Amino acid sequence: MDDQQMNPDPLAQLCAALNDADVRILHTGDQMAPALNDWRGRFRGAALAVLQPTSTAAVARAVRACAALGLQIVPQGGNTGLCGGATPGNGQTQVVLSLSRLNRVRNVDLMGSALTVEAGCILETVQQVADDAGKLFPLSLAAEGSAQIGGVLATNAGGTAVLKYGAARDLVLGLEVVLADGTVWNGLRSLRKDNTGYDLRHLFIGSEGTLGIITAAVLKMHPKPRAVMACLVALQTPRGALDLLTRITSDLGDRLTAFEVFDAHCMELTTRHHPDLRNPFADQHAWYALVEVSETSHLVPLEHMVESTLGVAIEEGCANDIVLATSEKQRADLWKLRESISESQKREGFTLKHDISVPIAAIPEFLDTAGRELAENCPGIQIGAFGHFGDGNIHFNMRPPATSENAEEREHAIAEVVYRVATALNGSFSAEHGVGQLKTGELERFKSPEEMALFWVMKAALDPQHRLNPGKVLAS
Amino acid sequence: MDDQQMNPDPLAQLCAALNDADVRILHTGDQMAPALNDWRGRFRGAALAVLQPTSTAAVARAVRACAALGLQIVPQGGNTGLCGGATPGNGQTQVVLSLSRLNRVRNVDLMGSALTVEAGCILETVQQVADDAGKLFPLSLAAEGSAQIGGVLATNAGGTAVLKYGAARDLVLGLEVVLADGTVWNGLRSLRKDNTGYDLRHLFIGSEGTLGIITAAVLKMHPKPRAVMACLVALQTPRGALDLLTRITSDLGDRLTAFEVFDAHCMELTTRHHPDLRNPFADQHAWYALVEVSETSHLVPLEHMVESTLGVAIEEGCANDIVLATSEKQRADLWKLRESISESQKREGFTLKHDISVPIAAIPEFLDTAGRELAENCPGIQIGAFGHFGDGNIHFNMRPPATSENAEEREHAIAEVVYRVATALNGSFSAEHGVGQLKTGELERFKSPEEMALFWVMKAALDPQHRLNPGKVLAS
Repeated sequence: MDDQQMNPDPLAQLCAALNDADVRILHTGDQMAPALNDWRGRFRGAALAVLQPTSTAAVARAVRACAALGLQIVPQGGNTGLCGGATPGNGQTQVVLSLSRLNRVRNVDLMGSALTVEAGCILETVQQVADDAGKLFPLSLAAEGSAQIGGVLATNAGGTAVLKYGAARDLVLGLEVVLADGTVWNGLRSLRKDNTGYDLRHLFIGSEGTLGIITAAVLKMHPKPRAVMACLVALQTPRGALDLLTRITSDLGDRLTAFEVFDAHCMELTTRHHPDLRNPFADQHAWYALVEVSETSHLVPLEHMVESTLGVAIEEGCANDIVLATSEKQRADLWKLRESISESQKREGFTLKHDISVPIAAIPEFLDTAGRELAENCPGIQIGAFGHFGDGNIHFNMRPPATSENAEEREHAIAEVVYRVATALNGSFSAEHGVGQLKTGELERFKSPEEMALFWVMKAALDPQHRLNPGKVLAS
Repeated sequence: MDDQQMNPDPLAQLCAALNDADVRILHTGDQMAPALNDWRGRFRGAALAVLQPTSTAAVARAVRACAALGLQIVPQGGNTGLCGGATPGNGQTQVVLSLSRLNRVRNVDLMGSALTVEAGCILETVQQVADDAGKLFPLSLAAEGSAQIGGVLATNAGGTAVLKYGAARDLVLGLEVVLADGTVWNGLRSLRKDNTGYDLRHLFIGSEGTLGIITAAVLKMHPKPRAVMACLVALQTPRGALDLLTRITSDLGDRLTAFEVFDAHCMELTTRHHPDLRNPFADQHAWYALVEVSETSHLVPLEHMVESTLGVAIEEGCANDIVLATSEKQRADLWKLRESISESQKREGFTLKHDISVPIAAIPEFLDTAGRELAENCPGIQIGAFGHFGDGNIHFNMRPPATSENAEEREHAIAEVVYRVATALNGSFSAEHGVGQLKTGELERFKSPEEMALFWVMKAALDPQHRLNPGKVLAS
């Protein structure tokens, strides 16, 4: 800080301090532009420079150099987050630290089903490496072609396979982290059992770069499914969806790998905005469930099992109708229906998105209560609900009617209803998207004072000078 | 502390401060005796009193009262730990806080497969509650009839089902914890997805009561298996065991629920000390694997699958011979062989126990190297190795020959070899038993200075005055 006062050009100081073959420094507007806003275009920031180190040691040197100059660090991976967690603030005291060039696969341990990768590895690459090894890295999400594993872990990303395999944190055996003072913590263990001291991994996972910078991880691989089947089930109510879930879990156990549900409105939007997609049922239904089951053994009659289970579901009245995908193409088409919802809502003009979760049994009550309150408070609002029902996670999106009122105020009022109803049901205002800079207010509003105090204790313990990703998760 | 100096009887002070219908205070020698030593009889301590609160609020009041009097708290569950983590020290400034009367099942959420239980619930009770609900709580270990769930979580207990279901920490959705200052953190969420701030659960799980006192937890239940099959496989080498593991995982996927391996010496001891047990093979073999597979669906031909897989294993040469349990009785008998090893070693006079883990692929090298070094350094030593090979976890136990040398010195020298070899293979000196007061020296010796520093940062953040379980995990 003293140095900075003597020399008024902090960029020159940074370049001098980081005269390092392993750290590329970008500082022109053009070079930095992609790193300064988020992909949804909702947040825009400024930075003194974008640093691209190629090794863990270089990350540590960069952190120490920034610390010495009083600069704050915004870690960034594929920059695909939805809450602005990787977008810098507006001052000139922040530096974006991009992990994208720290992207080697360090080790593949077949027997241990473990994969050691650096933070900058693209998620899709990690999936591919596992696949090449005859294994499965199950984490899968829309942005997997550009999301990097460091960001995936820093945000504890979810996606479509959480039901069976858990979220990002459940797939981590070991971590390597650069701390706020440039210390490297090497916790890259691949052990399935290790009870020697405090578990530090889970503190860094999900902390969105505010407690440390994840530079590498040992990831768990799973046995690769030999057969995968999908079907679309027409349903009358969300409660019917839960009855179906109960039936499938009871009969097929943990073969169930996806249980995605969406409403009639989502189906209508998707088929209208994507003329290549069609509703495979002759009739319209109120709700639809995309069910996927996987089987690792070729000795199991999966098709017979699925048909038998669904037959019972129809007899029990929890399913109206069923379309079973009988080819890879048909399975892909069913998934396209589900995966095009977000894009269709965008085209239709849906503007308000809420990524909530509740205990699974409370889903119908959440939908009833929140839907009714919003209809009362905001007549004419269109709701399109979809999501990972099997995880209690609903993307509760909506399009309010055009109005002359203050849109931002209305947006807050609507979010307030949604989050209040979810929280009253012991739910969460951010199931998988995290907090970033978008939801720091919600964190303060909905967390207990005791929990907020613990968060600040953790921040003070690991980053007492607020060098790492300031203003994210915890409002400065 | 000032009060204490004015009144020389701290017990009277404690009783006065805790005049509380919800906290029973034991203070006579007889009353306290069972709480002052561990069940292996290896550690013995002293305490001013044993407190037995019956509610979370009462735990909080007890903690505050102790804090005000300058007393330190040793949380204790079923007192079945193996490292002295629940045994107090020798002074009169420590109080044992027993969670045994805080033992209600608060909630069973069938749809969410979640169970909310208080810390004092016996593990076996929790298993039974899940079973009654048509679900499985998979954590299972020898002491399950007396181990309490609070201790199970505080030590991140392992057991025989880790291979498929993970250790204790993998079965936790939410936690309730009383902090060192008596604050209650209510993190009793049952959500499958929740990305709102730092994950505090995993810091308390496995911290052995040194960072907070776990008072309740929301536990995950799993689908209940409809069929379980076990077999004993005769093997030539540990490497053969790993080949068999690879074959089974490849063919049966995550149906594999146990892969327990033991050597010829363990078989010989067990059948000699337990005349009701017998080696089911006609010949002696060098190694044995107890393999168990489970299936949640009644539509799967499990027996056929297992037979087919094992047939291939024999053809491939990784199995010498196989005995398939065809009845529940036979399956129980196979498990008795495995479960009687510890007791048989005790009867034989095995005195040195090491609970190590290594990456699975490194098991053969660990056994070779450690076995050879010990044979050289301590001629005549008898090794009996067994454990959870599927998790890389070996109970590497041994009986040194009678000697006039300093036994304690030799014990340390042997442990040094075992832990050094395991650590050199990126393994752990305590896979599932934790650190307690037994292995604080090993923690300091084998952890990096960076990791030790982080442990102390966590301790300082959450228990700055060292009120909770002093001298455990981190040596005072």
